[in-house]
Amino acid sequence: MRILIAGGDGFCGWPTALHLSKRGHEVAIVDSLIRRQWDEELGTQSLTPIASLEDRVALWRETSGKEVPIYIGDLQEYPFVERVFREFQPEAVVHFAEQRSAPYSMIDREHAVFTQVNNVVGNLNVLYAIKDITPDCHLIKLGTMGEYGTPNIDIEEGYIRIQHKGREDVLPYPKQPFSFYHLSKVHDSHNIMFACKSWGIRATDLNQGVVYGLWTDETRLSEGLYNRIDYDGVFGTALNRFCIQAATGHPLTVYGKGGQTRAFLDIRDTLQCIELAALQPAERGEFRVFNQFTEQFSIQELAERVQRVAAERFDIQAEITHLDNPRVEKEEHYYHAVHTKLLDLGLQPHLLSDELIVELIDTAMRYRERVNFDVIAPSANWR
Amino acid sequence: MRILIAGGDGFCGWPTALHLSKRGHEVAIVDSLIRRQWDEELGTQSLTPIASLEDRVALWRETSGKEVPIYIGDLQEYPFVERVFREFQPEAVVHFAEQRSAPYSMIDREHAVFTQVNNVVGNLNVLYAIKDITPDCHLIKLGTMGEYGTPNIDIEEGYIRIQHKGREDVLPYPKQPFSFYHLSKVHDSHNIMFACKSWGIRATDLNQGVVYGLWTDETRLSEGLYNRIDYDGVFGTALNRFCIQAATGHPLTVYGKGGQTRAFLDIRDTLQCIELAALQPAERGEFRVFNQFTEQFSIQELAERVQRVAAERFDIQAEITHLDNPRVEKEEHYYHAVHTKLLDLGLQPHLLSDELIVELIDTAMRYRERVNFDVIAPSANWR
Repeated sequence: MRILIAGGDGFCGWPTALHLSKRGHEVAIVDSLIRRQWDEELGTQSLTPIASLEDRVALWRETSGKEVPIYIGDLQEYPFVERVFREFQPEAVVHFAEQRSAPYSMIDREHAVFTQVNNVVGNLNVLYAIKDITPDCHLIKLGTMGEYGTPNIDIEEGYIRIQHKGREDVLPYPKQPFSFYHLSKVHDSHNIMFACKSWGIRATDLNQGVVYGLWTDETRLSEGLYNRIDYDGVFGTALNRFCIQAATGHPLTVYGKGGQTRAFLDIRDTLQCIELAALQPAERGEFRVFNQFTEQFSIQELAERVQRVAAERFDIQAEITHLDNPRVEKEEHYYHAVHTKLLDLGLQPHLLSDELIVELIDTAMRYRERVNFDVIAPSANWR
Repeated sequence: MRILIAGGDGFCGWPTALHLSKRGHEVAIVDSLIRRQWDEELGTQSLTPIASLEDRVALWRETSGKEVPIYIGDLQEYPFVERVFREFQPEAVVHFAEQRSAPYSMIDREHAVFTQVNNVVGNLNVLYAIKDITPDCHLIKLGTMGEYGTPNIDIEEGYIRIQHKGREDVLPYPKQPFSFYHLSKVHDSHNIMFACKSWGIRATDLNQGVVYGLWTDETRLSEGLYNRIDYDGVFGTALNRFCIQAATGHPLTVYGKGGQTRAFLDIRDTLQCIELAALQPAERGEFRVFNQFTEQFSIQELAERVQRVAAERFDIQAEITHLDNPRVEKEEHYYHAVHTKLLDLGLQPHLLSDELIVELIDTAMRYRERVNFDVIAPSANWR
């Protein structure tokens, strides 16, 4: 299958591109390389050294014999998007190419506006390109579980049947997103739903949980193929960040009480889910929503898990610090999200193991000289 | 009260500004005047002649003795927004300043992107200005009943109590908007809800129905104060357009079967609702949603009503034509929307009367030489 990976230089996009290429799909990457600029803006870098996209792709060609053409450009520029679609004629587009950090979107007004315009316009352009150039192409769009917020009822997969005053309907699940970033994904979801209905586009919205882990079969093959991993207060996410903090003798920073419960998955399951969605596409006109995660944990639980593994396996005594929560969110709440649709399609989950935590701590110890401790504290405030 | 009217040169904004000024409020207008450019883009103009904003305001000063300062600029430009908020220090902002036509947003990709960026960024800038400059200021934001779509259950005012798997919560009412324009308002609503929660802003989202009518006590005082009225396929809305079509011997154009049911209100009730919301503001941190309409009608019903009045009162035999529906929408559906909150605040509705239709037809006959018949047919297609 001809699969276009938008955002193929990023944390999820790069390993997905390699995985699908390895599995015999014809893969191309679109990326503006802006993620690397954000590192410079924030004075940070990936814990692991990462090669340039050109070098990565050249090395992949040597390693696997597979070509992965790259298109460098911004999805906000429609003539660029048009050229990519006309040339590559994708059968599926996996759309990772958005600003994906909640704290980044909350830095200030400029970052909020940038995040929403970048994400919404890029996504609208992809929708128009599908409509006008490759109408049968399946859009596989990365959403986030954060679109739902933390309602006091079970979170369903995109839709909910509501009985109300003696009548009933199945309606889009109500959204209560956590940040201007999460809001941008809610805006995207609504735009895509409308495009499916009006234009007969086929789309799958993957409301992904927090992704942890780093290594996949392909990225571990050689240093030039390594994936990025972020530990900073803006792009670093829980679990990955905790492991790096433990490895570098930094306290594990939990925001507030830590009772915030979120959905998580291993990056290897991201790759599986994307391929499952691609091979079993949505129907024309269908807007399909999957909750893409495998387990839920509270932040405190995760910190304690890392603390225990660090002590047992590395003899590291990691402290857990509760910082003033920079975010506006409930710190104790009900959380139960349904996630059966990807399992029904064949997902074989990699549940969180101590071994994975060991591997992350190990990796962090190997690259500890690359860590800038000044950027670990949260720098964006929700208030 | 110091009230800023964003979009104060438009169809709803101008009469609202005059009404509030007349009622003793200190009113200022912000407008980019872009609505007048869209007329040029589309080769149309208001049925009624309208004076320039400068002349309107000068005439209002002569007529009423009241000053209404004007700020000409674009809400997308934050330095401009900042200056307006610092100088005027509004206690309430009535935000009409958005691209408000569904067909305009559906013309093509450029118009879709323009509509969403213009509306979302302008609104984000207003939210940041309130947060940073006038945190106690009440945002009165114009939404639309079209945010809800046509669910098969009753439409509530912004929120719905949902029982699900033995638990319950009150959640934002699910949205199924009809166009990229309606989607932009849904995006705004989500952004405002978040800003209220995070920053403690006070906001009222007015999900307004289709506004009909033209004259208010203030705009009818003299030709220089006249309000605009649109009859073209892009900005003209049902009822107003039907009256103008009847007056000019044009068939009344119903899209599809005409079973589409929508919520309507008289423009004089828009003015009342705005003042009621301003005088009884939302609490700090509250995101309040009112459904702002007084009656619901199907499009076919309205066309028949105009047809009957035209025959009885003007001896005009207006034909009703069913055009292929350019929109993707249900043409027969359940529709029942709750709208009690503004009544509770004191709204005294002007229900649709034959007299109002007579007055609209009369006005249209007076200005029929201004009508360009080439722009009445729908020009944007949803498919």
